Amino acid sequence: MDYSEESLRLHREWRGKLDIGHKMPVKTREDLSLAYTPGVAAACLEIRKDPDRCWDLTGRWNTVAVVTDGSAVLGLGDIGPLAGMPVMEGKCVLFKAFGGVDAFPVCVGSKDVRDIVETVRLISGSFGGVNLEDISAPRCFEVERRLKEAVDIPVFHDDQHGTAVVILAALRNALKIVGKEMADVRAVVSGAGAAGAASARLLLSAGLGDVVLCDRKGAVWRGRDGMDPEKASLAEITNRDLVRGSLADVMRGADVFIGVSAAGLVSRDMVRSMGRDPVVFPMANPVPEILPGEALEAGAAVVGTGRSDFPNQINNVLAFPGIFRGALDVRASDITQRMLVAASGALAGIAEEDGLDRERILPLPFDPRVRERVSGAVVEAAVSSGVARAAMAKS
Amino acid sequence: MDYSEESLRLHREWRGKLDIGHKMPVKTREDLSLAYTPGVAAACLEIRKDPDRCWDLTGRWNTVAVVTDGSAVLGLGDIGPLAGMPVMEGKCVLFKAFGGVDAFPVCVGSKDVRDIVETVRLISGSFGGVNLEDISAPRCFEVERRLKEAVDIPVFHDDQHGTAVVILAALRNALKIVGKEMADVRAVVSGAGAAGAASARLLLSAGLGDVVLCDRKGAVWRGRDGMDPEKASLAEITNRDLVRGSLADVMRGADVFIGVSAAGLVSRDMVRSMGRDPVVFPMANPVPEILPGEALEAGAAVVGTGRSDFPNQINNVLAFPGIFRGALDVRASDITQRMLVAASGALAGIAEEDGLDRERILPLPFDPRVRERVSGAVVEAAVSSGVARAAMAKS
Repeated sequence: MDYSEESLRLHREWRGKLDIGHKMPVKTREDLSLAYTPGVAAACLEIRKDPDRCWDLTGRWNTVAVVTDGSAVLGLGDIGPLAGMPVMEGKCVLFKAFGGVDAFPVCVGSKDVRDIVETVRLISGSFGGVNLEDISAPRCFEVERRLKEAVDIPVFHDDQHGTAVVILAALRNALKIVGKEMADVRAVVSGAGAAGAASARLLLSAGLGDVVLCDRKGAVWRGRDGMDPEKASLAEITNRDLVRGSLADVMRGADVFIGVSAAGLVSRDMVRSMGRDPVVFPMANPVPEILPGEALEAGAAVVGTGRSDFPNQINNVLAFPGIFRGALDVRASDITQRMLVAASGALAGIAEEDGLDRERILPLPFDPRVRERVSGAVVEAAVSSGVARAAMAKS
Repeated sequence: MDYSEESLRLHREWRGKLDIGHKMPVKTREDLSLAYTPGVAAACLEIRKDPDRCWDLTGRWNTVAVVTDGSAVLGLGDIGPLAGMPVMEGKCVLFKAFGGVDAFPVCVGSKDVRDIVETVRLISGSFGGVNLEDISAPRCFEVERRLKEAVDIPVFHDDQHGTAVVILAALRNALKIVGKEMADVRAVVSGAGAAGAASARLLLSAGLGDVVLCDRKGAVWRGRDGMDPEKASLAEITNRDLVRGSLADVMRGADVFIGVSAAGLVSRDMVRSMGRDPVVFPMANPVPEILPGEALEAGAAVVGTGRSDFPNQINNVLAFPGIFRGALDVRASDITQRMLVAASGALAGIAEEDGLDRERILPLPFDPRVRERVSGAVVEAAVSSGVARAAMAKS
């Protein structure tokens, strides 16, 4: 179904998807004196004495900035921050609906890394966390790295890490179905941008045998000419055997294909060339690298895409609300790889508990266990990573 | 009554006064497809084609940034942006409760004028207006001036202009009670910071005879040594007779006293030295320049303060919600002096309609006519000022 027309009509009707309300009545002079002056001065003075009280006396503990420069919005590319706002508002809606998080869209009018980092640093006192969104690679890597150094709240680039978490969860269960161990598996990741890079790193940190990344020039390998620093750093840890060649070349014999690239890049023959019972996740949106029906015909054992109209939707919304819920609940200073792996394990566990099936490797976003289990696993991992700065808060 | 203890308890219970909700259900896969991907892409592409569509398809039209650096919070002074957040959240509550405006608190971690202006400029795409709050003078003047040049949405420093609007409304009605014409009146303003400066300018633009500003060094007069640029510029338009001396000196024979300075600066004798039927607005918070009872004993005809526990509360909340409501409704590019005078006239009109009385020169904030009349007057004045960029929007 094409949702464009109806969605546009609704966007005109809504005129903004968010609604900033308040928790207390403001009906009487006394209400005003308590929520505002003169009473409010007491809360200000407490924070003045001990800045950490801002976590108890304001909404900072539960507020996340959804930050974009509009340079890589959905599959639409560099459409600019204003045009990206409907997506950012939508993201904020999901934060509240699936994580109970108050999220606000921050549209930054510059693509300069320093501008983005400085702007977010200077307003970070309003927030308990930062969700970077739809910022193009390779700038997104530098923005994330520099921002993590600049602020003392967690910074999370969802296009990287949210995607990686859900891919890892889906892969764990898919490998159970086909009876393979993580350590024995070679995966090919098509697309070496934000999602591809982070997925490769997370899969390796979860024990995957090997990953070969492919970009428009083919395989990424240590020593290849003209790579940006992020790609060069990925080449150090991926593609152990220094395989070279096109996507078709590197897919030959692979156990897993993960597509975060573009429509139609994969043919049936390429799937046929893969190893026994291949797992195929063509996640390009809205049109995948290969349609699920074609992949199955060509012998894929398990197929997942980014789309809601096929089985096995591999969707970030399963991850980021619970990850932030957990991070905020213990006032985490960072979101570590260990927290991401834990989130992924929680997601995989729910589907496993319900009985794995090649068409059911992940839970649905509306499953209430998702928020609870993911945030719980993240809290535990935050504590054991040493980044939790508070005991479990109410949420 | 002391609200401190109960307010602090409530702040702990609320843990943030705002709640960022959403306007649509997110219960089904279809809901998601309309509010988020894939449907949302249609709204993005419309804005990409015509950036002005951001006013129809996102919440920008109704969203205001409440921006502070925490340098002049309430009467507490430079307590920093984190400690200022309870006030900023409270302000956002008032924006929604009294103006239907979605307001978000932006706490800027720098007191550097350039940093504040650049930060707000870079995030201005998320907002339809900027409310500067509790930024100390004289930096506040420069922040406002430079920000107005940098962005194409209205910028309003409430401590200046909101205060000035309500003072002008109160003064109009007080002068009717004592039977004096604006043009014949000489007012003394104690305090030449944000509120004092803006009030002097607005009173003059509304036709007041003369204003003498006083700071810690006494009267501000053209030619006085060591004034900052704002004060020097005020000296050009105020104090026509170049009166010099202390506050007590300049109050002698004055028709009106307006205090936006500090507790206890005015004695009964100083009130006694004023002209016939003096109007006395000692608005320092929480303790006024002179207590109302003392001022009345000393012969004041009409007294108003900033406090809710005395008659005639001269409170910004009467002004800023309706002013922004009106400015947002017509997508004003600026908030002009004419719009401020109009807002003030609307406020004064409500109290006059109800029958003026020395204890009832302004409406109460909870009066539903306030939002309606103030915003209506602001819309009209925006249109006639040529700053309205849209026909009346829904609100």
